[in-house]
Amino acid sequence: MTLSIVTVRERFLRLQDEIVSTLSVLDGGTDFLGRDLGAPNGGLSRPRVLSNGKHIEKAAVQFTHSLGQSLPPAATERNPGLEGLPFQATAISVIVHPRNPHVPTTHMNLRFFLIEAEEPVWYFGGGFDLTPYYPYREDVVHWHQNARSACGSDERYRKLKTQCDDYFFLPHRGEWRGVGGLFFDDWTEEGFDSSYTFVSGIGDAFLLGYKPIFIRRMNTNWNDDEEHWMLLRRGRYAEFNLAIDRGTRYGMQSGRRIESVLASLPPRAVWMYDHRPEPGSREAELILEYLQPRDWLETFVKS
Amino acid sequence: MTLSIVTVRERFLRLQDEIVSTLSVLDGGTDFLGRDLGAPNGGLSRPRVLSNGKHIEKAAVQFTHSLGQSLPPAATERNPGLEGLPFQATAISVIVHPRNPHVPTTHMNLRFFLIEAEEPVWYFGGGFDLTPYYPYREDVVHWHQNARSACGSDERYRKLKTQCDDYFFLPHRGEWRGVGGLFFDDWTEEGFDSSYTFVSGIGDAFLLGYKPIFIRRMNTNWNDDEEHWMLLRRGRYAEFNLAIDRGTRYGMQSGRRIESVLASLPPRAVWMYDHRPEPGSREAELILEYLQPRDWLETFVKS
Repeated sequence: MTLSIVTVRERFLRLQDEIVSTLSVLDGGTDFLGRDLGAPNGGLSRPRVLSNGKHIEKAAVQFTHSLGQSLPPAATERNPGLEGLPFQATAISVIVHPRNPHVPTTHMNLRFFLIEAEEPVWYFGGGFDLTPYYPYREDVVHWHQNARSACGSDERYRKLKTQCDDYFFLPHRGEWRGVGGLFFDDWTEEGFDSSYTFVSGIGDAFLLGYKPIFIRRMNTNWNDDEEHWMLLRRGRYAEFNLAIDRGTRYGMQSGRRIESVLASLPPRAVWMYDHRPEPGSREAELILEYLQPRDWLETFVKS
Repeated sequence: MTLSIVTVRERFLRLQDEIVSTLSVLDGGTDFLGRDLGAPNGGLSRPRVLSNGKHIEKAAVQFTHSLGQSLPPAATERNPGLEGLPFQATAISVIVHPRNPHVPTTHMNLRFFLIEAEEPVWYFGGGFDLTPYYPYREDVVHWHQNARSACGSDERYRKLKTQCDDYFFLPHRGEWRGVGGLFFDDWTEEGFDSSYTFVSGIGDAFLLGYKPIFIRRMNTNWNDDEEHWMLLRRGRYAEFNLAIDRGTRYGMQSGRRIESVLASLPPRAVWMYDHRPEPGSREAELILEYLQPRDWLETFVKS
């Protein structure tokens, strides 16, 4: 395999098609909408959004490939000296906000960055994470077992799992966003071929992790109180994306198409002043037992 | 009058009482809740929140007085050299999110900052602004006429009005948050006495501006589509507060009580992918004709 943006771009486009069609079928045939938007110098933005589905309140599966004439300073914090060079970036991002509070919200992102030069500079980044409202231990364990499989080794899983816990944290709340998953950045391990294969596998693993959970919970009955709790927690999701998430904040500041940048926001969200779940309730259990950086695989073995 | 935190604190506390009782009466007698929270060294946090009222979906009227041992670097950007000095700050902030889409959301903030030293350093800041969903020209003109009265001079009004337009802007959307009002910071004009009198007058003017608009529109009929439009625009409000507003962002980063910092968030908000109001609709008119930095008093004279 040659180090090439085309290889990655084609892979991300195929993955987008696969995720779009799978989610569409899961929702009973609801179509994703979106038209392809050309970008300067052969770039492409390909947003696909499902709104108001039967089981999915909103899903956005977006592909972008952008070519820049001159790398902005903000993007070179980790690689000073690259400022001003032409660059390319391609990414796929997925967010699913289900209707049913028993189905967790999920998010995946994969990205590739390349500066073509005599000595090319490139790296991958990405990961996936899960945000339940009414958690089921078997779902969380399945999610993390699948993540470990995608990593190929326990050591790699533990590193990326910890990075995910570190990243999806709301410091102003002292709360984690969900039950985590994997997170990596500046990824060049063992060269391009090996990195590409690893990232490609993460892409495949996403649906293997999410689909069984979705199917298992999509027909669970729910009531208004449970929906309200989901909407409250979605407020936290909006807080994270707008105030904390580096990708969203960079997108907002860089003048990228704002509807793409903010497609991850929940379709509805609620804030209640000083709301606290009743001690001992399932809502309290979510926060105390699940939204914590735990060793989910160890837990599984023990229980 | 002597330069003193007590003078300002007492004034802000009286103003809080007045605003709380006025909003409570407007809502048909709904109580504000909240208990006083002591803070280190004689500080006081006095949140008052009305939730799920008849006309008001959420209102937060908050007072704080804080004493710090050592001024953090982030607070001294405009006054380098003060880092590490003990300081005091007192503030009142108000947000009203009405139920009826024909009643605008409003926000007011007044704050005073003091470093007691041989050569004391102090300044006021604050202002108020209005965010309509279905705007009425007479309401907006009244709001700005009242703001001009509070300024005492056309020149001061124009300066603070322009600063308000500049501040309440969502750069990622290219949109203004509302129809503006007044905004000022680092205010020391003509010394403490004069500044105190000016700021005190802004506090009084707030209800003179908002109450007549509230009463005029609170019984207007509305439908689900209008409510949905309000919820979409409230999404913009959440974006501004979480991603842009300096006060909120500072509060989130400084470890202040998070429920106070985020009390300004809308009780409910909605995001729709790539939503655009129909050309020629009242929703489009809001954006094109009202959410723009316009000379509202000039417009009034002409029409």
